[in-house]
Amino acid sequence: MIRVGVNGYGVIGKRVAHAITLQDDMKLVGITKTKPDFNALTAVNKRHPIYYVVPENVDLFKQHEIEVSGKLEDLLQEVDVIIDATPKNVGIFNKPLYEKAGVKAIFEGGEKADVAQCSFNTYCNYNEALNKDFIRVVSCNTTGLARTIGPLTKLGKLGKIRVVLIRRAADPVESKKGPINAIVPEFKVPSHHGPDLKTVLPGIDIVSVAVVVPTTIMHLHTVMIEVDGSFTRDDVIETFRKIPRIKLIDSNEGFASTAEIMEYARSLGRYMGDLYEIPVWKDTINIKDGELYYMQAVHQEAVVIPENIDAIRAIMGAEQDGEKSRKITDKSLGIDD
Amino acid sequence: MIRVGVNGYGVIGKRVAHAITLQDDMKLVGITKTKPDFNALTAVNKRHPIYYVVPENVDLFKQHEIEVSGKLEDLLQEVDVIIDATPKNVGIFNKPLYEKAGVKAIFEGGEKADVAQCSFNTYCNYNEALNKDFIRVVSCNTTGLARTIGPLTKLGKLGKIRVVLIRRAADPVESKKGPINAIVPEFKVPSHHGPDLKTVLPGIDIVSVAVVVPTTIMHLHTVMIEVDGSFTRDDVIETFRKIPRIKLIDSNEGFASTAEIMEYARSLGRYMGDLYEIPVWKDTINIKDGELYYMQAVHQEAVVIPENIDAIRAIMGAEQDGEKSRKITDKSLGIDD
Amino acid sequence: MIRVGVNGYGVIGKRVAHAITLQDDMKLVGITKTKPDFNALTAVNKRHPIYYVVPENVDLFKQHEIEVSGKLEDLLQEVDVIIDATPKNVGIFNKPLYEKAGVKAIFEGGEKADVAQCSFNTYCNYNEALNKDFIRVVSCNTTGLARTIGPLTKLGKLGKIRVVLIRRAADPVESKKGPINAIVPEFKVPSHHGPDLKTVLPGIDIVSVAVVVPTTIMHLHTVMIEVDGSFTRDDVIETFRKIPRIKLIDSNEGFASTAEIMEYARSLGRYMGDLYEIPVWKDTINIKDGELYYMQAVHQEAVVIPENIDAIRAIMGAEQDGEKSRKITDKSLGIDD
Amino acid sequence: MIRVGVNGYGVIGKRVAHAITLQDDMKLVGITKTKPDFNALTAVNKRHPIYYVVPENVDLFKQHEIEVSGKLEDLLQEVDVIIDATPKNVGIFNKPLYEKAGVKAIFEGGEKADVAQCSFNTYCNYNEALNKDFIRVVSCNTTGLARTIGPLTKLGKLGKIRVVLIRRAADPVESKKGPINAIVPEFKVPSHHGPDLKTVLPGIDIVSVAVVVPTTIMHLHTVMIEVDGSFTRDDVIETFRKIPRIKLIDSNEGFASTAEIMEYARSLGRYMGDLYEIPVWKDTINIKDGELYYMQAVHQEAVVIPENIDAIRAIMGAEQDGEKSRKITDKSLGIDD
Repeated sequence: MIRVGVNGYGVIGKRVAHAITLQDDMKLVGITKTKPDFNALTAVNKRHPIYYVVPENVDLFKQHEIEVSGKLEDLLQEVDVIIDATPKNVGIFNKPLYEKAGVKAIFEGGEKADVAQCSFNTYCNYNEALNKDFIRVVSCNTTGLARTIGPLTKLGKLGKIRVVLIRRAADPVESKKGPINAIVPEFKVPSHHGPDLKTVLPGIDIVSVAVVVPTTIMHLHTVMIEVDGSFTRDDVIETFRKIPRIKLIDSNEGFASTAEIMEYARSLGRYMGDLYEIPVWKDTINIKDGELYYMQAVHQEAVVIPENIDAIRAIMGAEQDGEKSRKITDKSLGIDD
Repeated sequence: MIRVGVNGYGVIGKRVAHAITLQDDMKLVGITKTKPDFNALTAVNKRHPIYYVVPENVDLFKQHEIEVSGKLEDLLQEVDVIIDATPKNVGIFNKPLYEKAGVKAIFEGGEKADVAQCSFNTYCNYNEALNKDFIRVVSCNTTGLARTIGPLTKLGKLGKIRVVLIRRAADPVESKKGPINAIVPEFKVPSHHGPDLKTVLPGIDIVSVAVVVPTTIMHLHTVMIEVDGSFTRDDVIETFRKIPRIKLIDSNEGFASTAEIMEYARSLGRYMGDLYEIPVWKDTINIKDGELYYMQAVHQEAVVIPENIDAIRAIMGAEQDGEKSRKITDKSLGIDD
Repeated sequence: MIRVGVNGYGVIGKRVAHAITLQDDMKLVGITKTKPDFNALTAVNKRHPIYYVVPENVDLFKQHEIEVSGKLEDLLQEVDVIIDATPKNVGIFNKPLYEKAGVKAIFEGGEKADVAQCSFNTYCNYNEALNKDFIRVVSCNTTGLARTIGPLTKLGKLGKIRVVLIRRAADPVESKKGPINAIVPEFKVPSHHGPDLKTVLPGIDIVSVAVVVPTTIMHLHTVMIEVDGSFTRDDVIETFRKIPRIKLIDSNEGFASTAEIMEYARSLGRYMGDLYEIPVWKDTINIKDGELYYMQAVHQEAVVIPENIDAIRAIMGAEQDGEKSRKITDKSLGIDD
Repeated sequence: MIRVGVNGYGVIGKRVAHAITLQDDMKLVGITKTKPDFNALTAVNKRHPIYYVVPENVDLFKQHEIEVSGKLEDLLQEVDVIIDATPKNVGIFNKPLYEKAGVKAIFEGGEKADVAQCSFNTYCNYNEALNKDFIRVVSCNTTGLARTIGPLTKLGKLGKIRVVLIRRAADPVESKKGPINAIVPEFKVPSHHGPDLKTVLPGIDIVSVAVVVPTTIMHLHTVMIEVDGSFTRDDVIETFRKIPRIKLIDSNEGFASTAEIMEYARSLGRYMGDLYEIPVWKDTINIKDGELYYMQAVHQEAVVIPENIDAIRAIMGAEQDGEKSRKITDKSLGIDD
């Protein structure tokens, strides 16, 4: 039984914590919260032990009648591995704590790659993460790209890959972030997403550009890949169809936008209405004049959850075979094999 | 065992259908779909028998490999009561079908009140609906108001009630409706919502005004009620606290907007991430200069689901006591008593 | 010739500066900018002398080849009156500078009322501001309410006034503020807007409640006023029709929302596409059961500009008659008399 | 004096009509309106003679006290050339009317290319349109691409061009169109935009993909062009700087998104707050590994207005030199040379 803690109980942390409770080989020891807000109420509802990180706020928890089990350092004493689901660029400051406690740690994609010994994606480099001390699950966007481009690299030789990421500006829970009515470019051109994918798929030739738009529910990626004619559109469709963490959809099923995808996701009955799979619109898959095109969406809140669970098995050396871990994880989360 | 059919499997229909499957005293015989879109896939996933309504589309279902069990008229032969969850103002055209089949029917709030023998809200007039042939569950906005104003009428004498409804422009699934960047008044001033509440709370003096705003997740109501000093703010809070289908929340728990409420709702783990309760911000409840103020939100997709289930028991005369039905319904849906 | 400076050249400052250049009895001496952004380019285009407020940024202006004429203190030496158009709650910190320079100052509605000797609205209390040293033009929301409620107080006895303000969350220029998909209540209930109106209309009985919604272009107010039957709907329409700074519109002219209003405003050809008038939908004006209803919108960027110009004449004692100032201002801004 | 009529007085028509009134060599004979809405009020304000197209609505114009000068056919008798600014795909149905009246016509980009003898962009193929009977000004997106890619073709040999268009979902005036919270792919992949650009730039190798996002103010294009090293980033910047209908901007001037661009546009004081130029973010221009990148935005309401004016001169053969027409047009519209 792998004893796991989750440091940070926000958009990602709460989902990883829930997913851990679904695993037969893992035990959720506790989660941390900085303050007693509605997410703390959720942890209480789910009977997750709560540890504090800000000593000054302990009284606040008492005022809201929320029991705390100790502080982050106490949690670290009880776990084999900690999931660092703290905000972007905060994990690097937590790392010394984990080192001091002698606890393995899994960081998220908001951290720079060098926070860890390697970056991680189940389909791309499970083995590389075996028995490491610090690994990093790549971001939602990178995971989304790894899910489809990873398998394509096994289908045939890929030429230059060009991706434009149309990113959601805020998560559904965020009521302060905008824009309300604008498109915001990322001014680093090409963007960091392409290179980030190389941390788990080192051999590829990829560039990316990104913009941010006023929506909260999903990212959308437009992918263009130079191909050499050694495989067909049908081969691509067949490849994607075989990957459980990809879901082929079609506009003629009513999937006219990201809205209908998330409606369908909610109807699956998973925790938080999540879509762990990467939906790819089958009707956008096209090969023309030596170029493969497709469009995919990413449920940014959820897509990395399966990979986090696999990462726990990998870092603990609990399962040597990535595909076996994937099957266990997917079954627990309701992803059809 | 009450045999129930659901005509229309969209935002409301799919939720009622699911809720029926949770009841020990009901059986979902089937649902209808006009076309084989993602909602049909959901029905397949949930193993709900599907009946068609548009004969020309039967082949389309075949093409998508979706089995149909017959047509609407066939479904009507198998049920005691049908839930009409078709689009606004379509129910009235279906009524003759139901009459011909000798089937009781429950209409939704998009229909005019005179489609049915009475309108319905569990807290307000359960008994009135007993053994009727046609009843109408009032709309999400009216249900929201009935939930809080109904109990207040029992607390003390209420003077004139003034409500401004700030309505969501589209449901999360709708990708064609706007506006994107505007506020849209309802030009009937005062609006129809006040009179509609009188169909279930006839004694009250209420007026309402409504605007539509670019959000998809919840309505928000600002309520102002003239009061005579016979009860206090604490009495109001205590009244609301005792009503299971009301949920008191507070901005100091991080509920800064409708976004955080729906995040919390999703974390409850209910089907579709629904919030059946009406959340009332405790910190907006105030009595000043003879006027009671409060603000509440309405999860428009979900709020009428418990009332639909109660309505089935009432119309069938299966449970004479509204409070008993409410308890059964609430337990099945995960609403805390 | 009144010499005027404008401290702060953002949404309000740039508009007041432009309006000053349209007055025969005023001279714009200069404006201040903290940094050389696109608004500074606008000031350059319009040949407004630019003064700096942050000494460390002087080099930045040079790098962008933007000439600065001196610092704020230098500007204050050259003017009779300064318009403080700095961000909310910053004006109070600037006041000592103005006092030290012996310069009169006009603050905006983002400041608390006690920053000034009196608050100001042309229709309500022009005379009160004559020859003062510090006055405050009330906010866009309060100005909007003063424009319609002020004249109504002269039509007949008004009972209790209840206003719900549906506020735009950000201005069109703001790309960071949200929410993207939520309704945000103001948790102070009743809100501060009602009392703020009393600073210029002391005799009225008013309460207000406010929410913030994801739109950038206009606020919308729903107004309910208890009336005693001494005037009719036609009297209200006639009263509004006579006020040049009110514009009666109708949904049957296609004004279905705030979007069409701002489209029409842009077509008027005024600076920044502004609508100085308060549009009131004629078809929302109704008197029923002793209550007057109407809905109005507020172009938050522009509505206070005429009042700022009048305020300059009042504080300088340059025009003793508010109505005369109003006519001069309106003619200069293209508002039909 | 070229006598011009404008058929359709919406987003494009009202702008073309206004621009015509600014030309010394043209006379606006009249515009058409289907109904007496706020745009008709604008035409009245601007003293444009109004012609009707729907005989049944003539009485409606009378009821709104709006004078009509005749019907479309009457207008056609008085003009040399008609601008067809009717909705998408309606122009093709109007063409026989124009042919019957013996009037030249300019169509917009919403029509298919074969409605006209040639498509048109000032920089790309002015001469081709000389003395034709029917020409078509390409759409806002295509015009935007023609503006920057056209000049680049003269700078050096361009390889394959890949464009992703992130399109605004509705214009600012539209209050019914969505989505409110979704990203909507165009399911034709690659999209029609690339081929459409070839109607005015036949030699290029271009593909495009498009998505629609919830914003009203501007499109944004991400452009990637394979280049051979024969020119540098500085050459690109210098090329763009010399094109008056391109405006180089920089994020360090505060242009963080399309919102700040349109704010700056409004401050220029042009009719409707328009931006006729294509803004290109200088800091997104980059050449790396044989590929040129840049991002540009398109004010969809305004960008084709200068081209429409040039098109009038071309179709009438009134000016043989496209560059001379461009200079006249630009001066009249306030575009800096």
